Parts: sequence; structure tokens; C-alpha cells
Amino acid sequence: MFEVIGERINTSRKKVQEAVAQRDAQYIIDDVKQQEACGATFIDVNAGARIGHETEDMKWLLSVIQPEVTLPLTLDSPDPAVLEMAFGLVEKTPMINSISLEKERYEAMIPFLKGKDCKVIALCMDDAGMPESSDDIFRRADTLVKELNAIGIPTANIYVDPLVQPISTDSTKGVMVLDAVRAIKAEYPEVHITGGLSNISYGLPQRKIINRTFVVLMMDAGMDSAIIDPLDRQIMSTIQTADMLLGNDNFCMNYLKGVRAGTIES
Amino acid sequence: MFEVIGERINTSRKKVQEAVAQRDAQYIIDDVKQQEACGATFIDVNAGARIGHETEDMKWLLSVIQPEVTLPLTLDSPDPAVLEMAFGLVEKTPMINSISLEKERYEAMIPFLKGKDCKVIALCMDDAGMPESSDDIFRRADTLVKELNAIGIPTANIYVDPLVQPISTDSTKGVMVLDAVRAIKAEYPEVHITGGLSNISYGLPQRKIINRTFVVLMMDAGMDSAIIDPLDRQIMSTIQTADMLLGNDNFCMNYLKGVRAGTIES
Repeated sequence: MFEVIGERINTSRKKVQEAVAQRDAQYIIDDVKQQEACGATFIDVNAGARIGHETEDMKWLLSVIQPEVTLPLTLDSPDPAVLEMAFGLVEKTPMINSISLEKERYEAMIPFLKGKDCKVIALCMDDAGMPESSDDIFRRADTLVKELNAIGIPTANIYVDPLVQPISTDSTKGVMVLDAVRAIKAEYPEVHITGGLSNISYGLPQRKIINRTFVVLMMDAGMDSAIIDPLDRQIMSTIQTADMLLGNDNFCMNYLKGVRAGTIES
Repeated sequence: MFEVIGERINTSRKKVQEAVAQRDAQYIIDDVKQQEACGATFIDVNAGARIGHETEDMKWLLSVIQPEVTLPLTLDSPDPAVLEMAFGLVEKTPMINSISLEKERYEAMIPFLKGKDCKVIALCMDDAGMPESSDDIFRRADTLVKELNAIGIPTANIYVDPLVQPISTDSTKGVMVLDAVRAIKAEYPEVHITGGLSNISYGLPQRKIINRTFVVLMMDAGMDSAIIDPLDRQIMSTIQTADMLLGNDNFCMNYLKGVRAGTIES
């Protein structure tokens, strides 16, 4: 199943920040219910933007969201103390967003993740910056999987984010990440591949068709999850259609259900 | 370069048949000029639908089209006599549509193609009917390439059509053709892959998103040509975008040109 990590509940978004500041529970409830109705399978919760308020904002968001949706949550913070608090409050096995190979984040996250029952997003980022080749992405993913396995996180709970980069800067940036995803899936068939998609189109006009076309290529390479806005009907339609074409939808049942529900549009 | 074989000039289409019957040259000219403006790189010409008139209709169409567009033509007929006549009239190296492994067509086409300077579409069809597995498609393509090579057609002039089949009948029909295309391209890196796309969505609603999503998967597998309506702006936008994402568009020049010309829409 393709995991859609709904990215909307993030206090860096102006309306969400206002709703959180005013403790407007209804705004948050309406948003997450819409994400669920549109096909989200995880709700990402990021309360990092109001400096000094992250712990209380995260706690409030969890208290508002959990009674309203049946979906598991993606706890999105670089702070292990916030994650530890949130981990104690979630009702379903959460996804943690995220660990990377950047020394500071890595050293903070490993003790937090050790022995925990959770899924985790593993960013192919290190202190040298963004990866510069397919091999580079593969090596970082390989290190992350091995290190996470060593602290008790099974490969099937790891969501590698290969870090999509703008094709406007270099026409090989698409192929670079596609090749890397194929190599990672060949080495670790059980690992998941996730990430945002919109970086691919950074700096170019008509970005939506680029993002939408790229998700199809990424799915063909092995991506089985994405961090997106589930209310973007075109990208959601494309994902559901690609999933059918890749043989994951017996008798086209999900596709036909989507058409009847009006979530798939041509 | 992705070859777009514009399929509109076909007397099985009602308006084209009327225009041909009435010798309405302007209708045909307007149509092919539009195809060229929208990015067609070949104009398919099929005069088969008015029984008993194919030779004269083909001759008339060639006389109308050739002075108006700079594009090469795809001569589309099962009749070697019609093709021989048309071959004598074309001004640019044409593409022949098509040979297959069906005994009657095969035996008619081989003598016609022998030693000719042309491109040729090779359908993976035989007298047993449509192919039933990836291996089946591969074996038919392999036979066609070897037989065409033997009569002097180089691999780089062969456009294999693996015959896309409806996913509504079997959810593996997408993966079947994708796997076959990868196998054919691995064995014959110089061969081209072409075909129609719309069969994939036969029997399902909202067909356009299926066709559009499938062309991206096919291009990822190695398809570098398609027989389509170049006036379908969405599929043309998708093809141009996928071509960029697959690393075939230095500095995104073609993409940006398409956006400026208004042919790419999000």
C-alpha cells in the first residue's frame, strides 16, 4: 500500500500557526478530517515554528487530532524531548520524522529511537550537505539502515528519504535519485522510500505537472510513500492511477472506488 | 528525441473521411499544420477506410500534405501495393506502419521492405493473437528484429510496438508490457519502442489520466515514441515533462520553450 503522509499540520503554515496560537481546535479538526477523506494514511504533526512553544503546541495538537481521526501520526520534530513526550501520548504506533546522518541530529535521535516500536523517516543528509550522486545517496541510505537495524528498528519500519533535488540546477538530478532508489530497493527490498516531491520543480514554471510526472517515475523506481498535501487532487489521482498500473490494484477496485468517490479526475 | 507519430489523418475518423471524399484539401492542411505546431514529428497517413479507394485516397493525401509540412510521413497500410506506390511519392525517408508476425501480413511485407531505406513499426502480433506474457512479447520482438535485420533494415530503424493491453481485464497487463520493454531495450539498445497507449484504459472510466500516467511508466521503461493525437495537450505536456525528468533535456530548454509557447500546462 502506498503511504500518503499528509503534510498540512505544520505551524510554519500561516493558517495552522494562527489556529494553534488561538487554540482553534475546529480548524485543526476540519483539516485533518479532510486529509483523511482525501486518502492520507498518516498525519504529519509539526509544531516547530512558534519558538519556545513547541512542547505545549505539540501536546495540544495531539489532544485535538487523536480523538478525531483513526490515522496514525507522524511526529515531526528535531527535538528528542518533544518526540519523547509525544511518543508517550500517541495511541497508535507512530512514524518519527526524522533521523539523518548530520552529527547533531544523529546523536540526538539514536538514543531516542533505540528499542522503540515506531516507523522512522531516514533522510540521506549528512554534514557535507545534500548527496551529489546516486552512489552517495545509496551509501547514506545503507549506513542509515544498518545503524537503525543495530538499535532494533527493522528494515520494514524504515522510510528512506533520498532527498529530491531541483532539476533546474542539473538535468541529471531526476535520474540520479531514480537510480539511487532502484539500488536501495535492490539491496533492501523491505525498506520503504518516501520524501517530498516538490523540490524537483524548484525554479521552474508550471511546477505541478513536473511534481505529478515525477511521482510516477519515482513509484516505478520503488517509492511507496510520499510526504504531500492530500488535498492536491491531481497528485493523489496520479498516485492512485500509477498504483493500479504497477499491478497493485486487483480488479482496479481502488481505482474504481476513487472514481465513484470523485477523488480521481482525468 | 521522443518521436510523436500523429495519428489524426486516418479515414476511419469521420471528419477525415468526409474531407477525403470531398477532396477538401484545406481541412487536411489545417489538421496536419496543427499536428506539426503541437509537436508531432511524423504524420501518420491511413487511407484504408474507403473500401476500393485506398490507392487514390493515399495518393491524394500525399499530394496535399507534403507541400505543407516539413515532417516525414508514416505510411499506414497493410497493402504492399499501396505502400509501394506511396513510397515512390514521399520526399523524406518514411516510416512504414506496419509489419507483424501474422503470416499473411508478414509474407506480404517482407518483400516490400527488403533493401528499402525506411523506418518500420513492428507489431508484436502473430496468428495466435495478442501476446500473453512479457516473455511472449520479448520473443516476438526478438524474431521481428532478427528478420528485419536479415533483409537490410538496421535495428535503429525498427520501432517495436509491444501492444498495450487493457488493465481492466488483468491487473498485471501494465507490468507485463513494462517488463517486456525493459527486456527488449536491454537486448537491443538501439531499437525504438512505440505504440498506442489508449488500450491500457479500455473499459475503465476517466481514461485520460490512465493513458497519461501510463506513458510516463512506459518512457521510464524505454518507450521513445508513441502513436497519439498531438492535439491532446495533456499527454503532450506529460511526455515533454517526463523527457526532461529522465535527463533528456539539457538546462530544461525544451520544457521552458514549451511553457513559453503555451504547449505545456500544469
